[in-house]
Amino acid sequence: MITRDTIEDAHNRILPYVHRTPVLTSASINAIAGSSLYFKAENLQKGGAFKARGAMNATLLLTADQRAKGVATHSSGNHAQALARAASILNIPAHIVMPRTVPVIKKRGVEAFGGNIFECEPGLQAREAMLDDVIRKTGATPIHPFNNENVIAGQATAAKELFEANPGLDIIVAPVGGGGLLAGTGLAAKYFSPQTVVVGAEPEGADDAYRSLKSGSIEPSQANSIADGLLATLGDKPFSIIRDTVDHIVTVSDQEIVAAMRLFWERLKTVVEPSGAVALAAVLKSRERFAGRQIGIIISGGNVNAPFSLSSSEPVKP
Amino acid sequence: MITRDTIEDAHNRILPYVHRTPVLTSASINAIAGSSLYFKAENLQKGGAFKARGAMNATLLLTADQRAKGVATHSSGNHAQALARAASILNIPAHIVMPRTVPVIKKRGVEAFGGNIFECEPGLQAREAMLDDVIRKTGATPIHPFNNENVIAGQATAAKELFEANPGLDIIVAPVGGGGLLAGTGLAAKYFSPQTVVVGAEPEGADDAYRSLKSGSIEPSQANSIADGLLATLGDKPFSIIRDTVDHIVTVSDQEIVAAMRLFWERLKTVVEPSGAVALAAVLKSRERFAGRQIGIIISGGNVNAPFSLSSSEPVKP
Repeated sequence: MITRDTIEDAHNRILPYVHRTPVLTSASINAIAGSSLYFKAENLQKGGAFKARGAMNATLLLTADQRAKGVATHSSGNHAQALARAASILNIPAHIVMPRTVPVIKKRGVEAFGGNIFECEPGLQAREAMLDDVIRKTGATPIHPFNNENVIAGQATAAKELFEANPGLDIIVAPVGGGGLLAGTGLAAKYFSPQTVVVGAEPEGADDAYRSLKSGSIEPSQANSIADGLLATLGDKPFSIIRDTVDHIVTVSDQEIVAAMRLFWERLKTVVEPSGAVALAAVLKSRERFAGRQIGIIISGGNVNAPFSLSSSEPVKP
Repeated sequence: MITRDTIEDAHNRILPYVHRTPVLTSASINAIAGSSLYFKAENLQKGGAFKARGAMNATLLLTADQRAKGVATHSSGNHAQALARAASILNIPAHIVMPRTVPVIKKRGVEAFGGNIFECEPGLQAREAMLDDVIRKTGATPIHPFNNENVIAGQATAAKELFEANPGLDIIVAPVGGGGLLAGTGLAAKYFSPQTVVVGAEPEGADDAYRSLKSGSIEPSQANSIADGLLATLGDKPFSIIRDTVDHIVTVSDQEIVAAMRLFWERLKTVVEPSGAVALAAVLKSRERFAGRQIGIIISGGNVNAPFSLSSSEPVKP
């Protein structure tokens, strides 16, 4: 059970190790949206994503015995790097199972923090089998990227900070993949800003959270979107929290996600990964419904490859 | 003659209309550079570039008679948009001569502020001829992008703000094209931070300022670089100020510029145009010479086309 105190404690615990990220605003995006938007810039977080919060909280909560044996996870994305970073801060081992198909840049991110990478075949089954094997051999504690209350309590601190910086929000919007960030956002609203309506934002091609809320039980994700951080199926722990705390979920197309990334680029000059742009895309799609409101938006991350090369005479082309 | 008071007055004059842009830092870029870098983020300025400062100052200094007839310039870049914006704030006409080959996005930027665009053939001669014609017909006051003391005094306010935010800078580095920003930076250092050494940063393929300082007279630019904001030949007004206030100029290759853009993208998650990355490239090239110093760097602008499309399955590729 994640209480108000759980989140307060998590926040105090992690603040020495993570950024209190800035809140960005843009008059021209407000004009386009027809509302007042406050962007919590977790793309400027340590490691380039909110994942630093949950991984840090879960790792700091390990006992001395657990710490000695280290942490483990399987991840192809930002959680892997965040967990390796948290472990390196505490000077304990991190064992990270990654599909062999993962981009080199993501492996390098984990290695930069001294994480041990175990390569496996792609696919959830192969990943879980390899992780079980690693845990059996090392005795490491598994830290799931989202189906873990300590992780969820850590992710909740992003919204908590946004409520502290902007107390009058009518609505807060967070993306949903496995559900850790949205569940944390829902709990933060419940405890720290109960008048704020919580909305989830999800790709149409991975709308399992949308369908799960409709049907009342977890539906598998189709995992078909450029928002590669949001392809996982909702975990059961986030699901039960989201059911209690989230008003509704808005689904958006990949085209709408790209349009939102472009706005971030052109108007805020800030680099946002596709998953990080989904919440703005959802707000733009809800333009009429949200008109005139004060809206918090969580930019979940900014880890995308730089598109610059010398092959084109102009440095970047649409 | 631009005095300390000229720059103080310019700053007070323009502050209601421009951003006091933030100063960004990155521990990981500092580690790469071997020094402590303070980035003045003029890519987050109104219109996405420092040009808002000079254009605003020059326009605010017009007499009532001059205002009635409006302003004019020829520009293919950020000055055009900045001048159109300044004119729209004062509700006066802006006549902008642009080569017909200019990207649509730049024309749209001028039109968004209600600027009147006059298309001409590419090339300096055609641009100047068309501008003369426009001035004759409209009576508008020409506001040169850099060879204008009011513009230079406005550009000086970027460095002034950086000195105010970070009083202990050993070095400040600004890019040099026509010379307005570097001249303003040199004057700001002279008046507000005399212990700071001023360094210019210039593309190798447009190193006219470097050669002009060596030879003692203005040398024409080869205009061959991806840093499209720095292709102009140094103006005589900036040149005489730069000669007095700038210690030396570092030239960098297009490859080094792209590497700096990539660092901004990956480490600061901030969008910087090639011209805006030249000063960081120069600092990285001067790694040993600048080791351990406190260095101010002006990110001059962030106006580059967004590279996002749905044609690639991953949103952005190197």
